[in-house]
Amino acid sequence: MAGNSIGKEFVITSFGESHGKQVGVVIDGCPAGLPFSEVDVQGDLDRRIPLQKPELVSGRVEKDVVKILSGVFNGFTTGAPICMTVENRETRSSDYESLRNLPRPAHSDYQATIKYRGFNDYRGGGRFSGRLTVAIIMAGALAKKLLSSLDIAVFAYTKSIGKTRTEKQPSLDEIKQTTYQSAVRCPDPACAQHMETAILNARKAGDSLGGVVECIALKVPVGVGAPLFDALDADLAKAVFSVPAVKGVEFGAGFSLAKMKGSEANDAFTVQSGKVVTVTNQAGGILGGISSGMPITLRVAIKPTPSIAKEQQTVDLSKMEHAKITVGGRHDPCVVPKAVPAIEAAVAITLADHLVRAGFLPKVLKRQE
Amino acid sequence: MAGNSIGKEFVITSFGESHGKQVGVVIDGCPAGLPFSEVDVQGDLDRRIPLQKPELVSGRVEKDVVKILSGVFNGFTTGAPICMTVENRETRSSDYESLRNLPRPAHSDYQATIKYRGFNDYRGGGRFSGRLTVAIIMAGALAKKLLSSLDIAVFAYTKSIGKTRTEKQPSLDEIKQTTYQSAVRCPDPACAQHMETAILNARKAGDSLGGVVECIALKVPVGVGAPLFDALDADLAKAVFSVPAVKGVEFGAGFSLAKMKGSEANDAFTVQSGKVVTVTNQAGGILGGISSGMPITLRVAIKPTPSIAKEQQTVDLSKMEHAKITVGGRHDPCVVPKAVPAIEAAVAITLADHLVRAGFLPKVLKRQE
Amino acid sequence: MAGNSIGKEFVITSFGESHGKQVGVVIDGCPAGLPFSEVDVQGDLDRRIPLQKPELVSGRVEKDVVKILSGVFNGFTTGAPICMTVENRETRSSDYESLRNLPRPAHSDYQATIKYRGFNDYRGGGRFSGRLTVAIIMAGALAKKLLSSLDIAVFAYTKSIGKTRTEKQPSLDEIKQTTYQSAVRCPDPACAQHMETAILNARKAGDSLGGVVECIALKVPVGVGAPLFDALDADLAKAVFSVPAVKGVEFGAGFSLAKMKGSEANDAFTVQSGKVVTVTNQAGGILGGISSGMPITLRVAIKPTPSIAKEQQTVDLSKMEHAKITVGGRHDPCVVPKAVPAIEAAVAITLADHLVRAGFLPKVLKRQE
Amino acid sequence: MAGNSIGKEFVITSFGESHGKQVGVVIDGCPAGLPFSEVDVQGDLDRRIPLQKPELVSGRVEKDVVKILSGVFNGFTTGAPICMTVENRETRSSDYESLRNLPRPAHSDYQATIKYRGFNDYRGGGRFSGRLTVAIIMAGALAKKLLSSLDIAVFAYTKSIGKTRTEKQPSLDEIKQTTYQSAVRCPDPACAQHMETAILNARKAGDSLGGVVECIALKVPVGVGAPLFDALDADLAKAVFSVPAVKGVEFGAGFSLAKMKGSEANDAFTVQSGKVVTVTNQAGGILGGISSGMPITLRVAIKPTPSIAKEQQTVDLSKMEHAKITVGGRHDPCVVPKAVPAIEAAVAITLADHLVRAGFLPKVLKRQE
Repeated sequence: MAGNSIGKEFVITSFGESHGKQVGVVIDGCPAGLPFSEVDVQGDLDRRIPLQKPELVSGRVEKDVVKILSGVFNGFTTGAPICMTVENRETRSSDYESLRNLPRPAHSDYQATIKYRGFNDYRGGGRFSGRLTVAIIMAGALAKKLLSSLDIAVFAYTKSIGKTRTEKQPSLDEIKQTTYQSAVRCPDPACAQHMETAILNARKAGDSLGGVVECIALKVPVGVGAPLFDALDADLAKAVFSVPAVKGVEFGAGFSLAKMKGSEANDAFTVQSGKVVTVTNQAGGILGGISSGMPITLRVAIKPTPSIAKEQQTVDLSKMEHAKITVGGRHDPCVVPKAVPAIEAAVAITLADHLVRAGFLPKVLKRQE
Repeated sequence: MAGNSIGKEFVITSFGESHGKQVGVVIDGCPAGLPFSEVDVQGDLDRRIPLQKPELVSGRVEKDVVKILSGVFNGFTTGAPICMTVENRETRSSDYESLRNLPRPAHSDYQATIKYRGFNDYRGGGRFSGRLTVAIIMAGALAKKLLSSLDIAVFAYTKSIGKTRTEKQPSLDEIKQTTYQSAVRCPDPACAQHMETAILNARKAGDSLGGVVECIALKVPVGVGAPLFDALDADLAKAVFSVPAVKGVEFGAGFSLAKMKGSEANDAFTVQSGKVVTVTNQAGGILGGISSGMPITLRVAIKPTPSIAKEQQTVDLSKMEHAKITVGGRHDPCVVPKAVPAIEAAVAITLADHLVRAGFLPKVLKRQE
Repeated sequence: MAGNSIGKEFVITSFGESHGKQVGVVIDGCPAGLPFSEVDVQGDLDRRIPLQKPELVSGRVEKDVVKILSGVFNGFTTGAPICMTVENRETRSSDYESLRNLPRPAHSDYQATIKYRGFNDYRGGGRFSGRLTVAIIMAGALAKKLLSSLDIAVFAYTKSIGKTRTEKQPSLDEIKQTTYQSAVRCPDPACAQHMETAILNARKAGDSLGGVVECIALKVPVGVGAPLFDALDADLAKAVFSVPAVKGVEFGAGFSLAKMKGSEANDAFTVQSGKVVTVTNQAGGILGGISSGMPITLRVAIKPTPSIAKEQQTVDLSKMEHAKITVGGRHDPCVVPKAVPAIEAAVAITLADHLVRAGFLPKVLKRQE
Repeated sequence: MAGNSIGKEFVITSFGESHGKQVGVVIDGCPAGLPFSEVDVQGDLDRRIPLQKPELVSGRVEKDVVKILSGVFNGFTTGAPICMTVENRETRSSDYESLRNLPRPAHSDYQATIKYRGFNDYRGGGRFSGRLTVAIIMAGALAKKLLSSLDIAVFAYTKSIGKTRTEKQPSLDEIKQTTYQSAVRCPDPACAQHMETAILNARKAGDSLGGVVECIALKVPVGVGAPLFDALDADLAKAVFSVPAVKGVEFGAGFSLAKMKGSEANDAFTVQSGKVVTVTNQAGGILGGISSGMPITLRVAIKPTPSIAKEQQTVDLSKMEHAKITVGGRHDPCVVPKAVPAIEAAVAITLADHLVRAGFLPKVLKRQE
């Protein structure tokens, strides 16, 4: 069964493994004529790893360098599929050999072994590794370029880590300027400091933390999406759950809406500068599966990194008896900062697909005479 | 752009409108040889409307009678597409004519008008109506029959309504026996009573309530799903968001995981009756996009019914100026009870698709000699 | 496995069986705002059966009456899926009971029994019946309406029956006026007469005939299609092979091109009325999978009706030994006339899908203010 | 619009251009546990170019070396997507610069310029080049490995070139031993000699030839395919038309069936070694879209190479006036020999997809304990 593509007309196909030769992605369906080069991607790849605080991430600090292998000619997309790859370099596969019969709790080792009858590439989590978000981020960079030609901006940031949460609603400028200055990708500097401390404390304790990422898409035009199965929120949720470690997603006020009355939850319509808008945005910019023109907002729950230094209980599959496991190797004490650009990319990819399907064409694309 | 199908090998295509001739569904990809008849569907349709407390629902109490139009012969599925329909009978379309230029807050009137350039069937919400869950429920009945032949059971129930929430973890037997005895579909009788009261109070106040639906799938075998894009949780999330009024979904401990440490969140492996299981099930039965063999658990946030009797602020689209709206017609003060079987169906449909794709064949299906 | 849909953004899903309750189709992805009603379909359905010569067809002369069940409101498509059905009325299923263990040569009885493990609806060929072209013709009527709003016309006619072939290249006017005046759907009246005689002679001899259908699409704009997998000719070929009894398809000069030299086969470019055209059209309007702006022409080989009155050799599956079979029931001595509107519909459906995917919007569709 | 993937559960995605960095393919959905390495692919790539007669092909004789970038671990497929690439080395792009405004007859230059608004990579035909069959051949090598584990064999050979046609029905052994010994890929040595001469004569005359490729698949089990849209012949036709220069396809007796009577065309059933077979195989192994268990046979018409040395008439697009063109560069006087492995691959890919979808699992794949 095939399951490594997403989208219907702007289609992403991912390939590669954590410790294989490279991680790659093919994007099929990008309109011809979009200015695009490695520079548009490299920035997003660099943002994946918070280099300003190496102690927040695993020892595996790779400088990922993107190569565009196809689909771009003379600085523009050609309409042909665009393949991009990043080499895997810092791989220490021996770390994983000893654990083959000891599935790590909260990882996918056990299910993968059953599903693939032992043939899966288990090194570094193989196809299940967080490293695969590199493919999503590369495709997301293209999607964001396409969206920006329609004046649409997408950005994600850290809303909470562990029990530390910012309640600040940052402005677009604050987000742009501050998010990636913070090693934890939180645009609220005071809160970011608490988050860093929390992560370092967890690391010291041989433990890990999770958190919540918020993502906002601005200026998505009214009418993108569909009722029922290809609802915009349905497809955004699917894309976001494709990012490893995601355990929940909510739009607008989300789960809080379940506790409200209709009179509190409903966003009243009004007219502003000649346009129909809503006074509040509890709906998060999507009603009936279709964009309302208001900012699309969603929040994504990221679980704590499953790899922790503490000893854990598992099963020795070769003997079917209890065993203890201490997960070695290099691991992030919190993957939320790395998840931020991946969530942003997943949202951008989904929006690009829906916009292409609905016939919204980039403004820069003119028919050449 | 097409968007009314879901699934890859067990594919559901929905058609019909709230006030059109009927609501229908085509299911393509159901294996031949499954015993199936209208009886298997009618029960689920009947469960959609909590007849024991008519005051909890809208005045529109339709007895929906399913007709199977194709794909079943001599009491068994044939392998051909199965079309099922339910007629719309109690429709009072005149209720909606007066509101054409006054989009109802938190409904999809405004976006639909823009997207379909005014050509959409606006009567009763048209294609956006909660009534469309009838199609999902019919397809879900078939999916559940297929799943039951593999010993898999799926059931949903009301976890909370407004601020009233049951913390009880009901047993399978309790759920089966109690859920639909309760008009609010909550298997905790004491809590159910509070929920009913809350709904009636909201109604009296001209207001509405939302809530949370929990869904559990038991005995899903290990190895169903895929890493990344066709992750089982990704596809379940997509399906669940196809149900109108859903604003959030979380698996296992969900958003709570974001606040936990890894040592709290990780489910330790153990051996039970010769099988690998986990001691806890914070993951909700899915790791790395693949079923772990533990119960799959998810919770879905349902927003309050947008149609409320209270006067609300909107915009007169014909004049582009402020206006007041009082939504008449018949509306449920809380759609959570109706959402319960729809969520159950959406989950069952997704599991059926993944099982068919992965080659799990119903036990009853033997090659006929 | 699902296999009853075709198209990517203008998607056709077929359901129903030869002797079931009805034959139906759902079309998902038709843009909103296209004027459409049963009248647009009924004409094409009526053209399926050459009533002027009942002796050319089977005794089963059904007046098929289309019902539109969804997706049309106030005379226009709404953007929602359009379901259309035709009831099956004249069914004599007892004709088939006696043949259950005797697969009819050149029919699909044997393979269907194996594939569906005996659960398939075998009455009248079930899902394999030529009657299923009714679904294609209904969807084709919608597709042709959409195409006509872009000034594109599609028409098919009989090129040959048995060894009788017209070499006339009929004009568009001749085709429109003459094709359906002829019971064999051949716009060359002299040739049509020979064809009728050939069919009646075959019938008298307890035998059957096949033939070739030619289809032409005019004014398809330059640039529709894609290189490689979604080549326009690839998708047209797939659609045409979905019509029962088709055994070959060729574009432009087709198999004759295999015998030509490049200097004979290449269509030279020239300028005509300020447009780039080709002097000849050996390519049949498609180069590199993309429309060239010239008429798209294809020819389709239809095999002789497999049901013949002559005794044939088969196998008794219950005993696995040789047996004789004489196929009773009502059968057309030649299905070519019935295939003509089906091929036309299959071509129109494919063009509509490619045009919708490429963003060509109907001229009649204006954004409603 | 995306169009560079084919298949539903064994999905091929192609990328790369004639003069870009490389040609590549991603195969998603190959079951885990299939032994596979570069060696399995290299042989097929080598067969693409008839090195024994360099004068039969263009000057561009590339030794294509396959690299497997993902999805294979320890010599077996892992269930993850398999990416394979071949570098482009011998590219002389300056050959094409001078022709930008002069579309070559029978090429896709003109349509591509319109479709992609001038942004397409026009060097060497870009995405439309016959070189892209390298991707199909790589994927086909994997498909054939999968098929061989089910005892299914697929092989293609040259049936005719220009007006020279072999009527020999070669045995499997003859095909295997003789096809690739012949530079024209014809297993009938006497005929092959005439074909070579014909090609060399065409070349001398500054002209080119086409031909017909026959492809046979042996031991495909009964029951593969579907009625109507996912008919096995429909999907095979689509795949085969994805190979550049294909203008027609027919199954079994194909277009000849259109001239036969039913009593001649119908294949009588009989019993042989306890199995149901047909006495003849006019149907080419497919009835009602489903495999019958008999050999699947198809023939594919290949047009003459459009690039010829003779001067041709075209249009100067910059001035919209008549012009002459003499196509320089390196071109095959006949692409039929190169098309042979591509057609074989396209057929194998389609069969693999249908077998995976229908749940036929490779015999070698056992659940590893």
